[in-house]
Amino acid sequence: LVKSPEGCIATLRAGMGPSGLLLPADGLARYESGARYGSGHAAFVARPASTDEVAFVVRSCNAHDVDFIVQGANTGLVGAASPDASGRQCVLSLERLNKRFELNVPNRSVKVSAGTTLSSINERLAPQGLWFPIDLGADPSIGGMIATNTGGTRFIRYGDVRRNVLGVEAVLPGGSILDAMDTVRKNNTGLDIKQLFIGTGGRFGVITEAVLEVQPLPRETATAILVPSSGDAVLETLSALEEAFGLQLTAFEGMSRTALDCVFSYAPKLRNPFDETLPDYALLIEISRWGRVGLAGAPIQETLETVLADILDTELITNAYVYDPANLWSIRHHISDSLKIRGRVIALDVSVPRDRFVRFRNEARAVVRRLAEHVLVADFGHVGDGGVHFNMIWPIEVPYRDDKVEALRRAVYDIVSAHKGSFSAEHGVGPFNARHYTEYVPQPKRELEERIWALLNSPHYAVIDPS
Amino acid sequence: LVKSPEGCIATLRAGMGPSGLLLPADGLARYESGARYGSGHAAFVARPASTDEVAFVVRSCNAHDVDFIVQGANTGLVGAASPDASGRQCVLSLERLNKRFELNVPNRSVKVSAGTTLSSINERLAPQGLWFPIDLGADPSIGGMIATNTGGTRFIRYGDVRRNVLGVEAVLPGGSILDAMDTVRKNNTGLDIKQLFIGTGGRFGVITEAVLEVQPLPRETATAILVPSSGDAVLETLSALEEAFGLQLTAFEGMSRTALDCVFSYAPKLRNPFDETLPDYALLIEISRWGRVGLAGAPIQETLETVLADILDTELITNAYVYDPANLWSIRHHISDSLKIRGRVIALDVSVPRDRFVRFRNEARAVVRRLAEHVLVADFGHVGDGGVHFNMIWPIEVPYRDDKVEALRRAVYDIVSAHKGSFSAEHGVGPFNARHYTEYVPQPKRELEERIWALLNSPHYAVIDPS
Repeated sequence: LVKSPEGCIATLRAGMGPSGLLLPADGLARYESGARYGSGHAAFVARPASTDEVAFVVRSCNAHDVDFIVQGANTGLVGAASPDASGRQCVLSLERLNKRFELNVPNRSVKVSAGTTLSSINERLAPQGLWFPIDLGADPSIGGMIATNTGGTRFIRYGDVRRNVLGVEAVLPGGSILDAMDTVRKNNTGLDIKQLFIGTGGRFGVITEAVLEVQPLPRETATAILVPSSGDAVLETLSALEEAFGLQLTAFEGMSRTALDCVFSYAPKLRNPFDETLPDYALLIEISRWGRVGLAGAPIQETLETVLADILDTELITNAYVYDPANLWSIRHHISDSLKIRGRVIALDVSVPRDRFVRFRNEARAVVRRLAEHVLVADFGHVGDGGVHFNMIWPIEVPYRDDKVEALRRAVYDIVSAHKGSFSAEHGVGPFNARHYTEYVPQPKRELEERIWALLNSPHYAVIDPS
Repeated sequence: LVKSPEGCIATLRAGMGPSGLLLPADGLARYESGARYGSGHAAFVARPASTDEVAFVVRSCNAHDVDFIVQGANTGLVGAASPDASGRQCVLSLERLNKRFELNVPNRSVKVSAGTTLSSINERLAPQGLWFPIDLGADPSIGGMIATNTGGTRFIRYGDVRRNVLGVEAVLPGGSILDAMDTVRKNNTGLDIKQLFIGTGGRFGVITEAVLEVQPLPRETATAILVPSSGDAVLETLSALEEAFGLQLTAFEGMSRTALDCVFSYAPKLRNPFDETLPDYALLIEISRWGRVGLAGAPIQETLETVLADILDTELITNAYVYDPANLWSIRHHISDSLKIRGRVIALDVSVPRDRFVRFRNEARAVVRRLAEHVLVADFGHVGDGGVHFNMIWPIEVPYRDDKVEALRRAVYDIVSAHKGSFSAEHGVGPFNARHYTEYVPQPKRELEERIWALLNSPHYAVIDPS
């Protein structure tokens, strides 16, 4: 078998409609670079509009030994959705795979095509008072969210994608179609096969459709920014809020001073709540109510203010700013984009058990200071679930050094590992972490994955329909 | 290799302490019959007290070709924890595997041994204001709960065991130990290996330890029994309560007239809330608050009464009885045990998408009436998640016919299958359903399970420690 993009192009041209195939002459730039990270050159872009077409593309690529890169909304941090530099790969874009949207209100579930974006799902659910409660700064496709098992800012209440997916359909490595589109919530008759496809970065198959469990939208939310009095006070403040609000606490996010500084420089029109100087660390918290408005007595913001007054009295926090949720969330969601104004961003997405959050943060910042004093750390994170976007910024004025960056990445991951954490919380492995996958994931587990891949690649598993 | 319980006994006697092995002369009766279903005869009982001892028992059984049956608290419905009639099998009891209980309050997690019972976990968590929020009528061991991925009565809010487990340790079929004891919540660096062991009935390994995520205990609950005005009104009442209470609705259970009749006959001291005759169907609902008492205004029971008055006005329900939660839950949790006073119980545990709940119930009851008029249907179920305990009672006075029971089981499962449901919601497959596993689970999926078993059985996977 000879790698032949040309032969593959000919096969695809014959088998797909005119919108299904894009060649370099059509302009491939927007498929060749990620929204934030990753870039390369593609031989061509395949844009299947149905599951059968996805299977056809996969089989055609296999037949001509062409590597393909599955691309959803291309919002990841690890370069997993971008072609390499060779110009010999196929980008398998799922942007046209967005036709299906079947809402089942009494079952609280929706069937959607994998190329559908999170925002468009939630726009269509909102009129029913429902949402898919994974909240992210980016706007990924649902297929990408499943492949990376994203968590986001409300993980503390709703969990990750895994906890909110009932079924998946996937095209297996050999090009056959696996139907695990369960709409039922309880099914324990053997292996829950969909779990193989969640969080495995597309390795075991291209996700083409999914059944999502959906939840009632909160009717009321209140948001505040808090300034903790010390590092140790961060987790104690979390405990105090969980004591007061239990499952009503729907976000507990941390933002470093450098991250805040980037945001207010990049988006000067955003209202800056801080009185004079920026604090070392700030917490964005959210409280929600789902029930009928008025049932719970006082307005939610008033209730939040009562509790925050108590917490101020304990001196766990030195300040609390309660205002308009849209504005406060906007600060949080601007961080990722704003960091680049200070230099080149090395965006690590790691996690530790949440009791280790503060210790990890202190140790990792210290190691960066020691190894590369000029590098800024602009971390932010999901304190409530132990996720940390540990962003390092290499200043524009200092010549960039790949080896140094690799040493920094490695040093931070070693600390993560010492705290029994993960070097990839919710962006998968990708080319940026391929080396670290080999280093931190034990060999028997990697080999088990290899062997399961081989099982799924077998032509034997032509169609698996568990229903 | 010759099957040799005798040889295996000699090996185990040499390798384990005196409490580790029980022989027929010691009296094995309590290991030979399930708490409710399943019975047989064992050659001997192995009672390992550590993970290493479990591995030793597994390797010894393999070496002497002795089948072993893993037994936790033996509370299942499908005979999976009982030996067969041959008297040649080993019961591998995990009752002594209950030493570990490591609570990590800031991480909201606890490490426990697999033989620990649900009630003892919750007794130890309660002083911290925490619980493992899977609520069941029975009191199983945590290993059994993971192997069957139980859901229970509060699934509607907290989900199944899968959603509440962070890590597992298991002894693989070949006797090696797999360490997937994650304490971190976000880890997407490849296959989430623990998913292979959840809901697969112990086939891929004996679960020996687990890390559980724990939740804040509700501070206030209010409970009511409602009488829906019709079958269709059941799901509309669910919607009305979700509209009013959102995520505060923590249970929505259905109970048939026959189930209620059995309960009040079996436990006459239980207070019967119904004015004159028992209704055709009744709903047990629960509302919870997790936050500080008083923060949400009116007492929770008052709030519930306000909403129920509105629902009574809509005529979705004809009656509502609001009183003491302990008493109302006691009615619900007495059902399983009480059915036997009317005859021999055939306990099916099935599930359907929740929008199909009422239709499934009508169709399944009709088919039982048609095929065996004398059989009583005493179903109860988790309307909120589509789970149905479809219990059939074969009256004592009618000679029992296995073939007829098999035909009934099959007829009900066919209806489940037509509604895209599952013939085993949360008790696994076991000998009672072995035939139906072959019938309803497609061959390629069964073969994939067989091949994954073979991979895990390989001596290659000596120790997998993902941390």
